Amino acid sequence: MSAKHVGVALLGLGVVGGGTYEILRDKRDMILKNDGVDIEVRRVLDRNSDRLKQLGAESLAARDIDEIVNDPDVDIVAEFFGGVEPARSFLIKALEAGKSIVTANKEMLAKSWRELEAAAERGGGGLYFEASCVGGVPVIRTLTDSMQGNAVTSLKGIVNGTTNYILSRMSDEGVEYGECLKEAQRLGYAEANPSADVDGFDSSYKNCILSSLAYRRRVPLDRIYREGISKINVKDIAYGKELGYTLKLLAISKCRDGRVEARVHPSFLPSAHPLAAVKGPFNALYIHGDSVDDIMLYGRGAGALPTGSAIVSDIVFAAGKDTHRRFAFELEDGGDTVISDDFSSAHYIRFDVKNEEGTLAKISGAFAKCGVPVKTVLKKDDGTLIIVTHEAGESAVVRALAAAEQLSGVERVAAHIRVEE
Amino acid sequence: MSAKHVGVALLGLGVVGGGTYEILRDKRDMILKNDGVDIEVRRVLDRNSDRLKQLGAESLAARDIDEIVNDPDVDIVAEFFGGVEPARSFLIKALEAGKSIVTANKEMLAKSWRELEAAAERGGGGLYFEASCVGGVPVIRTLTDSMQGNAVTSLKGIVNGTTNYILSRMSDEGVEYGECLKEAQRLGYAEANPSADVDGFDSSYKNCILSSLAYRRRVPLDRIYREGISKINVKDIAYGKELGYTLKLLAISKCRDGRVEARVHPSFLPSAHPLAAVKGPFNALYIHGDSVDDIMLYGRGAGALPTGSAIVSDIVFAAGKDTHRRFAFELEDGGDTVISDDFSSAHYIRFDVKNEEGTLAKISGAFAKCGVPVKTVLKKDDGTLIIVTHEAGESAVVRALAAAEQLSGVERVAAHIRVEE
Repeated sequence: MSAKHVGVALLGLGVVGGGTYEILRDKRDMILKNDGVDIEVRRVLDRNSDRLKQLGAESLAARDIDEIVNDPDVDIVAEFFGGVEPARSFLIKALEAGKSIVTANKEMLAKSWRELEAAAERGGGGLYFEASCVGGVPVIRTLTDSMQGNAVTSLKGIVNGTTNYILSRMSDEGVEYGECLKEAQRLGYAEANPSADVDGFDSSYKNCILSSLAYRRRVPLDRIYREGISKINVKDIAYGKELGYTLKLLAISKCRDGRVEARVHPSFLPSAHPLAAVKGPFNALYIHGDSVDDIMLYGRGAGALPTGSAIVSDIVFAAGKDTHRRFAFELEDGGDTVISDDFSSAHYIRFDVKNEEGTLAKISGAFAKCGVPVKTVLKKDDGTLIIVTHEAGESAVVRALAAAEQLSGVERVAAHIRVEE
Repeated sequence: MSAKHVGVALLGLGVVGGGTYEILRDKRDMILKNDGVDIEVRRVLDRNSDRLKQLGAESLAARDIDEIVNDPDVDIVAEFFGGVEPARSFLIKALEAGKSIVTANKEMLAKSWRELEAAAERGGGGLYFEASCVGGVPVIRTLTDSMQGNAVTSLKGIVNGTTNYILSRMSDEGVEYGECLKEAQRLGYAEANPSADVDGFDSSYKNCILSSLAYRRRVPLDRIYREGISKINVKDIAYGKELGYTLKLLAISKCRDGRVEARVHPSFLPSAHPLAAVKGPFNALYIHGDSVDDIMLYGRGAGALPTGSAIVSDIVFAAGKDTHRRFAFELEDGGDTVISDDFSSAHYIRFDVKNEEGTLAKISGAFAKCGVPVKTVLKKDDGTLIIVTHEAGESAVVRALAAAEQLSGVERVAAHIRVEE
């Protein structure tokens, strides 16, 4: 195997950019020996001169993106800015100049995939983004290069470490949401403004990417239902446990008969489900393919070296390609795909009820009228009544809850959480 | 993307061969659309004419391997015979004729990898074997194409479905080994002669393949320590549970400072370890890389369609390559690698003891003298004494047990099981 020399530019030397820089520096010989690719970091772009000094990368500093784009010895541009701009503009420039790009930027990809793909097509380079979902765990490569004999029928993922840390702590220690969030912020697991994580945006970007690859059709970001974890009461986690469930923020999508549904929301899973055991900052993706059946890929969803590992893998992988994969489906705008909003699932509903005879019977009756069959009931002495339903459509459940709230014995619907059986 | 036409021959149409045939038949259009590869099954080799008829493959029947090897329209040969011969001879012929080969045959690969690799080198084709380990779960592709920026430091795998089914049942239902084996045979999970599975041969073939790839150096089959599950007493599974452990047959390997150890034996894992939740016929591989940290890949370890899924993935993957990966390390015979036999782990030891004062103190003393520190003790009224040790070398533990058996209060060492913390 004759060695292939590859010049790389890194845009941004923050946590993951720095981790990538270190892996490429420390493992250059190993990668050359194992994979026959000699990866040289030729340029870095970062305004923070202290950080450049800290990493010993001052001599590689580029003044601007044009210096990188115009450098014929840069073959691959890896981006670590995060956010849409200036990442998007810089990468489109790089792609149009014929570079391949490698990125962990899920937000940009979910929002601008089409434009990036078109620029890659024009320039002839490739678009690689293993690092965008589930850190160093090869979820993208599995969907694109290991399941070719499968129609994927569903994805369920714990794809955000911040929320999984918070929910794991609420579950294991019975601590309320607000306190867990503060602790996560103190530990650096959550941002000062935690919305991207706790409101499910980050998970929905990843759901968009993973679902589009899984079903090989565009699943637009704005058609993904999204609900965060900030309203979760620690009580419901405890009641759920009693019923045999574990609460997770899940990115879910399903494809049946050309109908795709995609959603991000807190969800109860049976506690024996492999995803229920995924704790703290760990992430996992559970995939069902019609040949392979269920598979699960598990690991750290973030961090300098885990995410850097995926970036480096993409660089080596891209370097080995003469022609790059095109995701043409991404340009088709859904084609004949129906993106469904009225998805089905089971539901956990907690009512505050008055101490009246026959309230449960009345609620069950109201639910039945709306086509929402009751599966399990848990009644507490303090006026708490919990109902878990069989699978039912969202709109039917909304009607059932409205009807139940009119009943004389019902004070209010205190919580409503979906259940994935 | 212009379509690439690929002719495939299938050797053997048993369970997995038949499953592969069905996937290739039913998903030909999908694969062509998604991956630009048009896969045509051109020849099949199977003496069972009923099976050929059942699959509607009579018109494709080849008389012998030469007809396949000499067919210029066969690009890839997929083998499903199992066992070393005639698989080995047939595949070497195919490789020398310039075909690429795809196989699930772990025994042949573990025993004849070197010869196969040399034949591939001579012919120019590729050697693909994703299906050899953990069914359709991309463990091989992860080690070769997704961890390029990592030095792998350890592997722990549940890589045999038969033994995992038996141990899961013993653990969940308290049923003795013999009865579980019979049930596994009745369900088709175990062969009439179950030795390949229950004595750990199958797991050691897979350990050989996975460890060689992980550490990029030859880990010879005959240097892998092997111990099966047939002597496991259901009592020890129950005592282990009490101590917070779950029993699994593990394929383990570690690489530290150029020293590799590889072994297959029953092992207690902490019950909170992700591998402990892998039940029944499911398999999983737990990998530690120095960049990516811990990752786990989980799914069905066997079956017509799951294994067929990996075969089909390899066919598509191989079809996309102009030059194939070479595993030259496999030819180096270990190089400077030290393959260690005296591996370290914690140990669970169950003693039958007499009702004498001070027996525990005497055993602890004997253990300490041999450099085996005691970690946990569990004492039962019926003369059962269980000791879990801290990590210690095998040879030290053998000395410690011999010394303990000489003590007046000790009747015998009734069980000895390793523990992976």
